[in-house]
Amino acid sequence: MTAVLFDRIALIGIGLIGSSIARDIRKLGLAKHVVISTRSAETLKRAEELDLGSSYTGSAAEAVEGADLVVVSVPVGASEAVAQEIASRLKPGAIVTDVGSTKASVIAQMAPHMPDGVHFIPGHPLAGTEKSGPDAGFAGLFKGRWCIFTPLPDTDPEALARLRNFWEALGSRVDEMDAVHHDKVLAIVSHLPHIIAYNIVGTADDLETVTESEVIKYSASGFRDFTRLAASDPTMWRDVCLHNKDAILEMLARFSEDLAYLQRAIRWGEGDKLMELFTRTRAVRRSIIEAGQDVDVPDFGRQRPDA
Amino acid sequence: MTAVLFDRIALIGIGLIGSSIARDIRKLGLAKHVVISTRSAETLKRAEELDLGSSYTGSAAEAVEGADLVVVSVPVGASEAVAQEIASRLKPGAIVTDVGSTKASVIAQMAPHMPDGVHFIPGHPLAGTEKSGPDAGFAGLFKGRWCIFTPLPDTDPEALARLRNFWEALGSRVDEMDAVHHDKVLAIVSHLPHIIAYNIVGTADDLETVTESEVIKYSASGFRDFTRLAASDPTMWRDVCLHNKDAILEMLARFSEDLAYLQRAIRWGEGDKLMELFTRTRAVRRSIIEAGQDVDVPDFGRQRPDA
Repeated sequence: MTAVLFDRIALIGIGLIGSSIARDIRKLGLAKHVVISTRSAETLKRAEELDLGSSYTGSAAEAVEGADLVVVSVPVGASEAVAQEIASRLKPGAIVTDVGSTKASVIAQMAPHMPDGVHFIPGHPLAGTEKSGPDAGFAGLFKGRWCIFTPLPDTDPEALARLRNFWEALGSRVDEMDAVHHDKVLAIVSHLPHIIAYNIVGTADDLETVTESEVIKYSASGFRDFTRLAASDPTMWRDVCLHNKDAILEMLARFSEDLAYLQRAIRWGEGDKLMELFTRTRAVRRSIIEAGQDVDVPDFGRQRPDA
Repeated sequence: MTAVLFDRIALIGIGLIGSSIARDIRKLGLAKHVVISTRSAETLKRAEELDLGSSYTGSAAEAVEGADLVVVSVPVGASEAVAQEIASRLKPGAIVTDVGSTKASVIAQMAPHMPDGVHFIPGHPLAGTEKSGPDAGFAGLFKGRWCIFTPLPDTDPEALARLRNFWEALGSRVDEMDAVHHDKVLAIVSHLPHIIAYNIVGTADDLETVTESEVIKYSASGFRDFTRLAASDPTMWRDVCLHNKDAILEMLARFSEDLAYLQRAIRWGEGDKLMELFTRTRAVRRSIIEAGQDVDVPDFGRQRPDA
């Protein structure tokens, strides 16, 4: 049994991530009291029905009163509004963290509002599924997944250690890096893949020569792999695109340049260039499996060989 | 128990697809004798070790002698060489089919060599995994998957019905369409997704600002989904690119045009355009799941909620 790590935790936002944190806190007994707050009355009601916390309020300001840990799990574009709302009600010595997919923007939005004596430590758990909302969360979501902190230069080591303990209790492995580097890394490993997935699904949906029903019917031959990422929460991903613009545009430019090279190789029948790329990428998959970052079964384990 | 459908079947090529067919034939008792042929002595030996057929030969010409059904499962670029090699040894009345991912090119390569009295019926089972070789095949691979025939105008209805019975015995659902249309449909549902996946994995592998070990470590946040397709057989995919060039270049042009639009929306902060696309693509995923073409569990079922 894990010990109580914080007397009072406030969860601002109770979607896939917030509600998974809530379920873990309850399961592991990490807090004496958990206050849940979200702007949508409907979502708040659902969180209460799911019995995710100890108390519920539509006011983020009210929620953070007396809280030792505040976890903000909202679309990154809403970070400043939340910071403004909670700032004056935060308890001295409280730790405020977030789970946003972009970090430089969240820091710019939240840090200026944080009062002295409050420890603001930006964080990003690399976990989730394509589902969203309080029903989509589950205990164990963060197990074995990375959580990246991008602490500000003057961060209190003790507060940092307490937050690290919290995420480790949830089963995460914690890394630290600079916010700007985080945003570049995530632009390639997460943001570009999502944008490309959204784009290809859009392209397929718009064709005149191939019907939508044909695309759906025959999607198992590759296309369906992209539809998972392209089913992710639209608001979250709009905000990611708007708040990590520079790094995303840089990665998009690289991607397009490489695609032009590949397109030219196809046009001119340069099989050797294709072979070189197609062989090299295979090794990347192998490394990912060896690193334990994907399942080692064909087809993501969707299809099982007959016994 | 399914009845014997063909006295003698010759399988030319014994990779993922060929060896899965072999396993199904054996399991279901669809033939009295199965001859297996492949150019690589090593692969042929492995097929024999796996006990995939009744007899084994390095010569495709020898393999087809007396066969009632010949299934050619080789990279599409090798189709003409196989057709030339087997043509004069085919039994009158034999059915010759293939499993290639491009159809107009396979027809152009094989049809001119087929002797009168032999029924050439091009086919394409939409099944497979990212693995390749005789060890990667398994019984049941084709169950519930589509198999598309692109028959030539003068195809004998009885031969067509026999081949349909064969694929249906393997659990496939059979569709028929024109070869040119097939190539367009597959360009969007299969070829473009594979090319895009290969490309993004290549881009990530080439960056200077983010290390390869970072890409691998944090790949679970989206990138790893692409690495599965990008681990597919390089020779097969080189040949697909070279043999469905026009349809692929058409789809690539559409994809790039749409990506430029999306890129511009990101640059200029046009959140409404992003929301419109990101919402629309979610519905496509829903349709695919409703059509039974993907599993209805988050994250392809990789990660299971704690009990």
